[in-house]
Amino acid sequence: MSDLWINNVRLGSRPEPVSIVIRDGRITSIGDPPTDWSGPTLDGRGHLALPGLVDGHAHLDKTLWGLPWRPHSAGPGLAGLVENERTNRTSLPPVRERVSSLLQTYVDNGTVLIRSHVDVDPDNGLSAVEGVLEAAASLDGLIEVEVVAFPQSGMLSRPGTAELMEAAVRNGASLVGGIDPAGFDGDAVTHLDTIFGIAERNDCGIDLHLHDRGSLGRWEVGLVVERTRALGMEGRVTISHAFCLCDGDPSIDGLLEQIADCGISLATVAPGSVDPLPLDRILELGIDICLGQDGIRDLWSPWGDADMLGRAGQMAWRAGYRRDEDIERCVELATWRGAKALGREDLHLEPGGRGDVVLVDAATPAAAAVTKPPRSAVVRDGAIVRSQ
Amino acid sequence: MSDLWINNVRLGSRPEPVSIVIRDGRITSIGDPPTDWSGPTLDGRGHLALPGLVDGHAHLDKTLWGLPWRPHSAGPGLAGLVENERTNRTSLPPVRERVSSLLQTYVDNGTVLIRSHVDVDPDNGLSAVEGVLEAAASLDGLIEVEVVAFPQSGMLSRPGTAELMEAAVRNGASLVGGIDPAGFDGDAVTHLDTIFGIAERNDCGIDLHLHDRGSLGRWEVGLVVERTRALGMEGRVTISHAFCLCDGDPSIDGLLEQIADCGISLATVAPGSVDPLPLDRILELGIDICLGQDGIRDLWSPWGDADMLGRAGQMAWRAGYRRDEDIERCVELATWRGAKALGREDLHLEPGGRGDVVLVDAATPAAAAVTKPPRSAVVRDGAIVRSQ
Repeated sequence: MSDLWINNVRLGSRPEPVSIVIRDGRITSIGDPPTDWSGPTLDGRGHLALPGLVDGHAHLDKTLWGLPWRPHSAGPGLAGLVENERTNRTSLPPVRERVSSLLQTYVDNGTVLIRSHVDVDPDNGLSAVEGVLEAAASLDGLIEVEVVAFPQSGMLSRPGTAELMEAAVRNGASLVGGIDPAGFDGDAVTHLDTIFGIAERNDCGIDLHLHDRGSLGRWEVGLVVERTRALGMEGRVTISHAFCLCDGDPSIDGLLEQIADCGISLATVAPGSVDPLPLDRILELGIDICLGQDGIRDLWSPWGDADMLGRAGQMAWRAGYRRDEDIERCVELATWRGAKALGREDLHLEPGGRGDVVLVDAATPAAAAVTKPPRSAVVRDGAIVRSQ
Repeated sequence: MSDLWINNVRLGSRPEPVSIVIRDGRITSIGDPPTDWSGPTLDGRGHLALPGLVDGHAHLDKTLWGLPWRPHSAGPGLAGLVENERTNRTSLPPVRERVSSLLQTYVDNGTVLIRSHVDVDPDNGLSAVEGVLEAAASLDGLIEVEVVAFPQSGMLSRPGTAELMEAAVRNGASLVGGIDPAGFDGDAVTHLDTIFGIAERNDCGIDLHLHDRGSLGRWEVGLVVERTRALGMEGRVTISHAFCLCDGDPSIDGLLEQIADCGISLATVAPGSVDPLPLDRILELGIDICLGQDGIRDLWSPWGDADMLGRAGQMAWRAGYRRDEDIERCVELATWRGAKALGREDLHLEPGGRGDVVLVDAATPAAAAVTKPPRSAVVRDGAIVRSQ
């Protein structure tokens, strides 16, 4: 926990330079320079200061980062993707090795927090969870990784998986996951009852993959709302993807109100080929929402690059945003708003917040999302992690 | 027109290194090193060789490239965008100055050909056309710019514009443009008759902006097909955007067959917020199609960066492509296929093609579109334009 005075930086779209003062790893003031200072300083060179970047939905264990280019080899559909991964992953270098390399890139890009879904299944056991936790530990606290025990290849359809997921949350995973309870795993009620049961017994949160579209997906959202309320899990449940909220159906607004009412958060990866979530309405209702990379160059897809600032720009471009305020909201989903959706209120660039600062040579947060500049400095807990 | 031996480069997804031999500005062989060579050489360092990049649809004259960041200021809708531009463009530096700066970036990124729509209207007269042509000339032939005389603010609705467009094609513009003959300009038949008339009288091609969606846009496509046939203009007409072909309506396939039959090409800018054109079917029918940047950081939108390789990646990501062959097709639209759609058959990396080569440190064209590496060398007509 360090002291640091960062002088001559800009915040948001305000042109005037300010100082950020960090004492004992916490931001104590933003504005005038400190009157007396004997600690380390960082010259901000008039650059823009952003909060630490946050990836709210990743699949670290799957990455091929650092390996030679590998053309996509999966057959069509979700089943083809799952099968392709099961066949090919055994020949990959260990999870710890691949994830350590990827996490270093995340750190260099200014990332301070990642929620990663990590595969748990009878073939893998807990080995991928262990590999990701070891990789995160090897970064000496430079980045936090929250692990979700994730039944990628099915839970009810692969007996033994639920027990392994429960073992995972007892051995370092922070949350229990789930995947398309109806469309992929075949029994929405039993799937949800099982994961809510694991969460209740182990006092952990839930982050559910829900790709199921249309009325099926929306019915499942209702089941999640019902269980969140029944178990008093308000504020501890995330629905990831939620493609069923993207098609403009008139029933969506009522569902969003229920989601807001029981404090469920949303995670989007803003995919290229699916219409965007109704972000205006989501924020208007006060629903917490984060942005994620999803896979990062893996057996599922060649896309993803561990740069959440670039991802924010991609999200904004995909949504057709042009105005600074709209584009900046995407940067918020990749920084403090994203952190808040993961239950972390202190990862904000304001007095009292943790001393995490990312500097870029850009006019405004929107300009940064559009131009995706390299990080000129990365500060974590008041310590300079990277400076160019 | 230079000689150059580029050794140790790779092509497509083939791993074996080859030599590219350029004599008098033309590629004479790809494969073995030349048996005797006394000319200049370029060490390809095992990098991937791509054809020169092509932007098939740009708006160079509008760019704010090189100027300070300017938050988007337009009101809603097309009319708001047009009005915002008319109000604000008078305070900008001269077209020639802004476009020269932008073209230098295009060249550095390996671009050899751009088709740019350039505003023609009673306020501007031909000044923007002249500015773009002067900027292109100032680059000493490093990049070709084809100008389309474009009635951005309406043609029938702004009397005098059609006459100015005709003057433009008599003074350096290569094609005559048009914009939403029905939805924006109010009279599809008169609009199209006017621009086809200009094309016929001046023996020039046509490139029509068609954003009109649904059945209206499809009706207009039919009108374009009819006039293309009637005037024997097969192979000389491009429809840009063609959003009306993106919604999956059953009538689209028949229209595509007519488009193919009379050699109309398509230009897409693969926008974030509009569904993609049916690319598989378009290529299957043999329709020529190119990719463009559209605006590059202008009063219309903050997006665009003069990098067609990046744009190809963006197109592929937006379409949800994962397989190398699908992503590579987008690179083709930004290179030789795009050039072909503009009527240039010789801008291909093959014996007989012009000696334009772009080198990048990437495994395959798909990998290049995903990772968007800097250009390690740019060769134009056999001359090294850039080498790092």
